[in-house]
Amino acid sequence: MRETYHEQLDQILVELERMTRSVSTAVRRSTSALLTADLGTAEEVIAADAQLDISGEGVEAKVFDLMARQAPVANELRMLVAALRMVADLERMGDLAAHVSKIARLRYPAPAIPAELQSVVADMGRVAERMVNQAGDVIQTRDVGAAYRLESTDDEMDKLRSNQFRLMMDDSWPHGVEVAVDIALLGRYYERIADHAVSMARRVIFLVTGELPAPQ
Amino acid sequence: MRETYHEQLDQILVELERMTRSVSTAVRRSTSALLTADLGTAEEVIAADAQLDISGEGVEAKVFDLMARQAPVANELRMLVAALRMVADLERMGDLAAHVSKIARLRYPAPAIPAELQSVVADMGRVAERMVNQAGDVIQTRDVGAAYRLESTDDEMDKLRSNQFRLMMDDSWPHGVEVAVDIALLGRYYERIADHAVSMARRVIFLVTGELPAPQ
Repeated sequence: MRETYHEQLDQILVELERMTRSVSTAVRRSTSALLTADLGTAEEVIAADAQLDISGEGVEAKVFDLMARQAPVANELRMLVAALRMVADLERMGDLAAHVSKIARLRYPAPAIPAELQSVVADMGRVAERMVNQAGDVIQTRDVGAAYRLESTDDEMDKLRSNQFRLMMDDSWPHGVEVAVDIALLGRYYERIADHAVSMARRVIFLVTGELPAPQ
Repeated sequence: MRETYHEQLDQILVELERMTRSVSTAVRRSTSALLTADLGTAEEVIAADAQLDISGEGVEAKVFDLMARQAPVANELRMLVAALRMVADLERMGDLAAHVSKIARLRYPAPAIPAELQSVVADMGRVAERMVNQAGDVIQTRDVGAAYRLESTDDEMDKLRSNQFRLMMDDSWPHGVEVAVDIALLGRYYERIADHAVSMARRVIFLVTGELPAPQ
């Protein structure tokens, strides 16, 4: 019975990791849909978000069930509480990936991003996807070093976003208001995905070390 | 002992409601700082956000402690799990209110919002503040009807945001890219504050009725 309980605890982490990989796929496909004005892929990412919410509810139900039946304390309770927060992070990351696809859909059949700005958006998408995968690795390996490295990847994201603002605020910006607003919101979505990845890594650090890293 | 336990459960709701009022104040003061280019108030809202995070950690610690010592099941466990999610909502709403103040600070001493757009932003600020207060009322009264009414206030927010986009995307928009980007991000912040208020109300509906309302 005790072993089954621990298997169930492990299973929750396995499912969180699996959700993380789904989010990573959603981020990659959304960025691709945005850059290639691919409506079909955009629609698929938006539809897949509902599936992620269902997975999240499933994990929440399992956590609730373990809390109710096993009366966990100390580390096990801490793990379950962290799992609830991570599920919330993952559901939100899925929403944000879908928001990227919604901008692709809104501008279709035109591409939302002018050719000369594609690399700026592609870089943000790539860093966000990498961070989500790193968060998945951290859940899988409980590697505190890797969790801390995620925060330095987040610095890359911050630089990309500053760079993006500099481009838009330049008096010679030729792309008009609509593109600027789309890019500002896309930047915000990718930045938030990155923030949630960092937040997940910080929860793993707390689970492993018992100490919460200083706020970013 | 049993009574003390229930007093502690009630106390958690009291603290959540108190945090909600602090967020409401932060939203109101941030909007005011933004519209009057008031750097002092902006700085105070930004500084006060740290206090809100400390309150949130305090509530989380109490929830954790009750879970560990009382082994709650059924409704009491559900309430504690909901409290964890609401704390996360409130911390995030506080961050978003601070983001509004950060835009005021970034543009200071210039006002971030041109005179003819002030009413658009003021309306969003007012609706967001009202929704946060309604969420506080819902926590205090457990009034399911009021919780449902919050969703219709959210429709007002959606209309304000669509209206804002229409203004910006008009070819005759005279305010340039910087103002458009600021307003798009501000709109996003207020909309997210509103979303979190709705999310809190939905959790109360679930606690009272045992059923989760259909997704928005």
